[in-house]
Amino acid sequence: MSAPAETATAASSRDDARVREFATETFEALRAATGDGVGITRASYGAGESAALDIIETKARALGLASERDAAANLVVTFEGTEPELPYLACGSHLDSVPQGGNFDGAAGVVAGLAVLAGFKDDGLRPRRTLKLYGLRGEESARFGKAYTGSSALFGKLSAADLAVNDAASEHTLGDCMRAVGADVDRIKNGEPLVDPKSFAAWVELHIEQGPVLLARQLPVGIVTGIRGNVRHRVVECVGAAGHSGAVPRWLRHDAMFATSELVSHLDRHWRTLLERGRDLVITIGVVTTDPREHAIARIPGRLSFSFELRSQSKDTLEAFYDLFLSECRLVGEERGVVFKLDRRLQSAPAVMDAGWVGRLRAAARALGLPDEEIPSGAGHDAAVFANEGIPSAMIFVRNEHGSHNPDEAMAIEDFAAGVAVMRAALKEAAA
Amino acid sequence: MSAPAETATAASSRDDARVREFATETFEALRAATGDGVGITRASYGAGESAALDIIETKARALGLASERDAAANLVVTFEGTEPELPYLACGSHLDSVPQGGNFDGAAGVVAGLAVLAGFKDDGLRPRRTLKLYGLRGEESARFGKAYTGSSALFGKLSAADLAVNDAASEHTLGDCMRAVGADVDRIKNGEPLVDPKSFAAWVELHIEQGPVLLARQLPVGIVTGIRGNVRHRVVECVGAAGHSGAVPRWLRHDAMFATSELVSHLDRHWRTLLERGRDLVITIGVVTTDPREHAIARIPGRLSFSFELRSQSKDTLEAFYDLFLSECRLVGEERGVVFKLDRRLQSAPAVMDAGWVGRLRAAARALGLPDEEIPSGAGHDAAVFANEGIPSAMIFVRNEHGSHNPDEAMAIEDFAAGVAVMRAALKEAAA
Repeated sequence: MSAPAETATAASSRDDARVREFATETFEALRAATGDGVGITRASYGAGESAALDIIETKARALGLASERDAAANLVVTFEGTEPELPYLACGSHLDSVPQGGNFDGAAGVVAGLAVLAGFKDDGLRPRRTLKLYGLRGEESARFGKAYTGSSALFGKLSAADLAVNDAASEHTLGDCMRAVGADVDRIKNGEPLVDPKSFAAWVELHIEQGPVLLARQLPVGIVTGIRGNVRHRVVECVGAAGHSGAVPRWLRHDAMFATSELVSHLDRHWRTLLERGRDLVITIGVVTTDPREHAIARIPGRLSFSFELRSQSKDTLEAFYDLFLSECRLVGEERGVVFKLDRRLQSAPAVMDAGWVGRLRAAARALGLPDEEIPSGAGHDAAVFANEGIPSAMIFVRNEHGSHNPDEAMAIEDFAAGVAVMRAALKEAAA
Repeated sequence: MSAPAETATAASSRDDARVREFATETFEALRAATGDGVGITRASYGAGESAALDIIETKARALGLASERDAAANLVVTFEGTEPELPYLACGSHLDSVPQGGNFDGAAGVVAGLAVLAGFKDDGLRPRRTLKLYGLRGEESARFGKAYTGSSALFGKLSAADLAVNDAASEHTLGDCMRAVGADVDRIKNGEPLVDPKSFAAWVELHIEQGPVLLARQLPVGIVTGIRGNVRHRVVECVGAAGHSGAVPRWLRHDAMFATSELVSHLDRHWRTLLERGRDLVITIGVVTTDPREHAIARIPGRLSFSFELRSQSKDTLEAFYDLFLSECRLVGEERGVVFKLDRRLQSAPAVMDAGWVGRLRAAARALGLPDEEIPSGAGHDAAVFANEGIPSAMIFVRNEHGSHNPDEAMAIEDFAAGVAVMRAALKEAAA
C-alpha cells in the first residue's frame, strides 16, 4: 500500500468515527423526545415533528450554522459558500413519521446532511457553492392522506383543496395545522412558489431503504435511479344494507364485507397478472373498518370503509390499474347490490433521478471502496417533488432491517456512516 | 252468519282495539326512554335495558299484577292461577337490543305477553294454571359475544368463562354487569339452575320476523317450527407483518387485509356450494377493523380483526362448515404467511319447536280467520334455550318490514294485534 492511500484511509476512518458519534447522539435525542412507548410518533405538523425540528436546529446552531424556518415552516440550515450567488446544493429529508413508526425513516437524511455540514465546518472547508440542509415537514401521508406536503409547498404545489383536508383523527385541516406551526398558508394556498427551482443546483437525499433488497444482497448502500409515484384514496366506502345476520339469506344480502373481500380478491388477481407481465405495481389497503356505531356480531355490516393506494414507477401502469379498480368497483357493486363511494383522488407522479448525479454518487462510492449498486425506490420520497421541478435530484439508500413504518426499523450506524461518506464526497466535489 | 260467530267477531275486535291501544302506548314509552337519536339502544345489562324492564314492571303493577326480579335479574310478572301447584305457562321475550337497533326486536314479545295478561285481568278470567311473563335480559350478542345470557342463566347454563368475557367497548365483564343490575352471580357462576325446567308447562314467545318471508308472502303472522343455532368467534385476528406499502413487493408481504379477503372469498364460495345443495347456512362477518394504532394509508396492515358467525338449523352443517373455516384459515395462512388467531368459540344449539304447541297455535290462528303458515326461524331466540331444556316451546312471528338490528324495523300494530290474538287464544286454552 502507498503512503497517500494510507492517509486517505486514516482520514476516512476519522470521518466515520466522527459521524458515528454525532449521529448516535442525535438519533438518541430524537428517540427520547418523540418515543410513544411502542415506536416513535412525529405526526406531520404535530408536536413530535416540531420537537424533531427543534432538536436539529439546536444542534446546527451549536455548530455555528445559520438556521431559519421557511414560509412552509420547514427547517433550513445554511452553510454559506464563497460565491453565494451560485445556485446552492440542497440536501436533507423529512422529520415527520407515521404513528408508532421508526426513528430513521426521514430523520436519517436530515442527520446525514447535518453530519456532512458539521464535518465541513470541523475541517475548515470553504466551498464556492452554498450548501443548504432541509428538515422537511409533512412527507408522510398518514395524517392528511397527501404525501410530500412540506416539499410541495416550496414549489406552490399545494392547492386550497389539499389544505382543506381534515386530519383523520380530528377536525383540524392541513391548513390549520400548517398555520399553527408558523407556515404562511395564504401564500401557499394561492399556489405561490416559496422558492425558485432555479436557485437549486441539486437535491441530494439520504434515506433508509424501506424494502429488503440491500439486506438480501448484503450491500450497505445503494444509489437510487427512480422513485415510484402513487394514486390514493384516503377513504373508499362500501355502502350496502345492514340487517340481522340470521334473517337475511345470502341472495338478499347487501353485505359490505363480502363485497369488499370479493373486490380485493379480484384486484389481487389482476395485480398478480400484471407482475407476471413485468409491470411495476404495489397495492395497499392499509386502513379498514366497519362502522363502529353499528358494530354487532349478529348484524350484516351495511358499511365498510378502506384506504386505497397504488404505487408504480410507471404513470401508465398507475392509470391502467386505476381504471381497472373503478371498473371492478362497478362490477362487484352491481353483482352484490352495494356501492363503492370514493373520496377525492390524490396522486404523486413517479420521478427519475438525475443521471449525472447518479454517476457522481456511484463514483464516490467506488472511490471509498464501497459497492456502487443502482436500486429503484419502491417508496415515495420528497426527492420526487424536487426532481419533478426540474432540479437535478439524487438519493442514497442505506441498508435497514425490518422495513419501515414500524417500530422495528434497524439501521447499523456503520452503514449510515458509509452512506454519509458517499454523500460528503459527492457534495464536496460539486460545491468546490 | 250465525249469532255466536257475530259475538265472537265483536269480542275479537274489542280485544284487538284494547291490544292496539295498550301496545302503542307501551312501545312509545319504550322508544322515548331508550332512543339514541338514530335508533334505540338497550345494551344487555345496561341502562337502556334496565329502563325497559322498569317500564314493563310499572305497567304490570298498574294492572294489579305481581312482579319480581329473578336471581338472573330478569323481570318476572305473575298472574296466579287457581291451581298454582301446576306447572305454569310462561311467555315473554327479551328487552335488550343491539346498538342503534329497532324498538320491536324482543320488546314486542314482552308487550304481547303483558297485553294478554292485561286482557285476562280485564275480562276477570281465573285460569287453573299460573301464567308468567318474562322480560329477559341479555339475549343479544352485541355486547358480550354470547347470546341468550338471561335465559341461559335460568337453567345454570352460563359458565364462569362466559361471565369473565369483557364488554367489547369497556373493561367490564358480563359477570360485573350482571351483578350491577342485581343478579346473584355466585349462584350463576356455579352452574346452579335458578328454576326447575319441570316447573314450566310451556314457553310461548312472540317475536317480529327478522327476515322478509312473511312480508313477501303477505302473511301477518307465522308459526315457527325451529330455530337456527350458531357458532361464533367474537374476534378472529389475522396476524401478518406491518411494512411500508411501497417497499415490500407482493411476494414478500404478510398482508392481513389481502389474506382476510382471500379467506372470506373462499368461505363465500363454499357457502354458495352448500346452499346449492340445499343446506341451511348463513355466514356473517359483522365487525371488521385494522389496528387503529398503526393506521396509515402507506402501511401494509399487520393485523386485521373480525367477528365470525355461522348459523344453521342443522348442527351437522354448523360443525362441517366450522371445520372448513379452520382448514381455510390454515391454508390461506400458510399461503400468505399470516396466522389467524381465534378467540374462544361460542355456540348455541339449534332447536325444534314443540309439535303439540305448533298445532295449537295453528288451530288458534285458523279459528281467528288468520293464515296458519309454518315458518323456520333464521335468527336465534331465547325459545331455543327453553326448548333445549325439554320445555315444550313455541313461537309466533309477526310480519315486519326492513328486517331488524337496525332503526328501520316496521311492524304494523294490526299485525301485532293478530299475533297477540293467536297467543291469547292458545294460552287461554292451555291454562283453562
